[in-house]
Amino acid sequence: MRTKVAIIGSGPSGLLLGQLLTNAGIDNIILDRAGKDYILSRVRAGVLEEGTAGMLDFAGAGARMHAEGLPHDGFSLAFKGRDHRIDLFGLTGKRVMVYGQTELTYDLMDKREATGGKTIFDALNITPYDFSGDSPYLTYEKDGLTHRLDCDFIAGCDGYHGISRRSVPQQALKTFERVYPFGWLGILVDVPPVSHELIYANHPRGFALCSMRSETRSRYYIQCDLAEKINDWSDERFYDELRRRLPRNHAEVLVVGPSFEKSIAPLRSFVAEPMRFGALFLVGDAAHIVPPTGAKGLNLAASDVHYLFSGLAEHYTEHSSAGLDAYSSRALKRVWSAVRFSWSMTTMMHRFPDSGEFDQKIQEAELDYLVGSVAASSALAENYVGLPY
Amino acid sequence: MRTKVAIIGSGPSGLLLGQLLTNAGIDNIILDRAGKDYILSRVRAGVLEEGTAGMLDFAGAGARMHAEGLPHDGFSLAFKGRDHRIDLFGLTGKRVMVYGQTELTYDLMDKREATGGKTIFDALNITPYDFSGDSPYLTYEKDGLTHRLDCDFIAGCDGYHGISRRSVPQQALKTFERVYPFGWLGILVDVPPVSHELIYANHPRGFALCSMRSETRSRYYIQCDLAEKINDWSDERFYDELRRRLPRNHAEVLVVGPSFEKSIAPLRSFVAEPMRFGALFLVGDAAHIVPPTGAKGLNLAASDVHYLFSGLAEHYTEHSSAGLDAYSSRALKRVWSAVRFSWSMTTMMHRFPDSGEFDQKIQEAELDYLVGSVAASSALAENYVGLPY
Repeated sequence: MRTKVAIIGSGPSGLLLGQLLTNAGIDNIILDRAGKDYILSRVRAGVLEEGTAGMLDFAGAGARMHAEGLPHDGFSLAFKGRDHRIDLFGLTGKRVMVYGQTELTYDLMDKREATGGKTIFDALNITPYDFSGDSPYLTYEKDGLTHRLDCDFIAGCDGYHGISRRSVPQQALKTFERVYPFGWLGILVDVPPVSHELIYANHPRGFALCSMRSETRSRYYIQCDLAEKINDWSDERFYDELRRRLPRNHAEVLVVGPSFEKSIAPLRSFVAEPMRFGALFLVGDAAHIVPPTGAKGLNLAASDVHYLFSGLAEHYTEHSSAGLDAYSSRALKRVWSAVRFSWSMTTMMHRFPDSGEFDQKIQEAELDYLVGSVAASSALAENYVGLPY
Repeated sequence: MRTKVAIIGSGPSGLLLGQLLTNAGIDNIILDRAGKDYILSRVRAGVLEEGTAGMLDFAGAGARMHAEGLPHDGFSLAFKGRDHRIDLFGLTGKRVMVYGQTELTYDLMDKREATGGKTIFDALNITPYDFSGDSPYLTYEKDGLTHRLDCDFIAGCDGYHGISRRSVPQQALKTFERVYPFGWLGILVDVPPVSHELIYANHPRGFALCSMRSETRSRYYIQCDLAEKINDWSDERFYDELRRRLPRNHAEVLVVGPSFEKSIAPLRSFVAEPMRFGALFLVGDAAHIVPPTGAKGLNLAASDVHYLFSGLAEHYTEHSSAGLDAYSSRALKRVWSAVRFSWSMTTMMHRFPDSGEFDQKIQEAELDYLVGSVAASSALAENYVGLPY
């Protein structure tokens, strides 16, 4: 079997890349070790930059997002018992779109089926070969047989734990990492969100985030110790702790209900450099992880896809390798911007194990300055809505 | 002996406050445990915000500063081998004035003598009494005798190690502190500065700063371990290390000469709250210390003086205590802004003992973003030139 671009991973980045290639008439096949239902069952991020929403439109898969997504013109920073709105649209002329990653994945799968794109689900032991040579190919197992897929290029869209990055010789990779000493305990619950915009709360007891998936589905998080056990956190205990960390105006109107998803997620910053090895290109989480503060993970995957797609299109239509040659440095420039922003938001909003009173005062002074200065608010806002590609 | 305002400390803040009071016809006496020559021998900061320069003008002591000081419209951030100018004037419409604190102190002493202000030098064991009651006074020893000075108010302008803050009952004070795990090794040398504007350099080997006192006197610093010994640092070794941390265009043109001052200074952030205890007001370093990165220490003392003088003037001319009652909260608001800024500049520019490659990349990403974004550059610039009083 042969294709031009073999894409490992049927998450948002693989699907988005595949769709752009299909629309451009560039043959591609997606392989995923998991099945479609499993992929769609994963709960993930939900705040899209305009650039990401634009990519979905460009792929021809944006209709439902526009119909059902929630455009947000701002968000709140809550601290010292009050909340302060960051007017994203007023400061930048841009907004963000609240639309669950699961929905976006669903739409892209739908579009892929409608346009005849080929995806091989349940492909076990996917292994890339010879990507530093002239004849790259993949092997995988399916239905008890080993298959081979020859290709021009391999796009590694298979996440942090995927095979793509692990196939690169260690000495060819330079990695940078920060593991944060806390996690996010999150719940999904079918109640209207406490506020129609997101609230990021700094509190001496720890960070809290009020987010949502829709007007009737809320996503709430509280910072917790990584040693915490889910079973120790009844919904009641969760809501009590969330209320404590919110300004009174929000805590008092919080609508509660039984959660239907509850989990603890670790927070990590990770970057692998470079993002290209011969015919193998790393995309999204395969190359970099950001903590969820500021919602950059999915958006960064979309900008990687933007650079990689334009490089591939240039290769196939103009027979120029310039875009592909520039992929790693272009992508990494934006990656480090977002890694910086996510690190900075995380550092400013969370309580660290060694945080003292000085640190709390510094965080509050940072937040006071951020909400009080047009320049500082603008800097925050331009990062939040997404720096230009 | 009796006066309206007894000022402890004949440094810039005590002198500035004294002069404004004298000009307003409000009787005051300055006491200092040191002599005039000793005070003028101390080497200190040298970058004045417009607000600070304006205070000196308002005191009637700005003529020599305008004649001999160097107005600066920008400064450089150097990292990854290149330097990037922050256009202070273009971004904020304001500039800073490079003028040594020693010169400013000299000018204020001169003005005080010319206008008949009374200063008691070499006043030993200055001790404030009864400042929480109705009849505050000070005692001090001079020429073997103990003297008493009755007053309405006491201004503690005697620095971090002074008696003023130490006279306040510990339980009445809340203090916040961060001691940084490195120092600045600095030299003064009579050679033209390597650049006509300041250069703040981030380098994997540590921070460096190229500053100046005049067009013929340079002030250079390199970050060092606090355990370093001055005697281990010949001028040659110092210059070698400085050159390594500067972009080549500067390193190559560095003019060297024999240093005539060389010292290692620790870096610390410190805030004591509140800044008023009855009739005792803490001003400048007596209440707060910032690391020198960003040059905020003297400027913060000047803004304290601004708030305290306006409170005292209001008290004596309008018989209202409103300004004095608001002193601590007004001053602290600006103090925390500057503490935040100095902490942030220090954190971004220095190498920490536990810094890894991730931290260095984050610092470089911060700097890349700062110099590349108008919003971020503006935020940096508005802090550097000084937030409004």
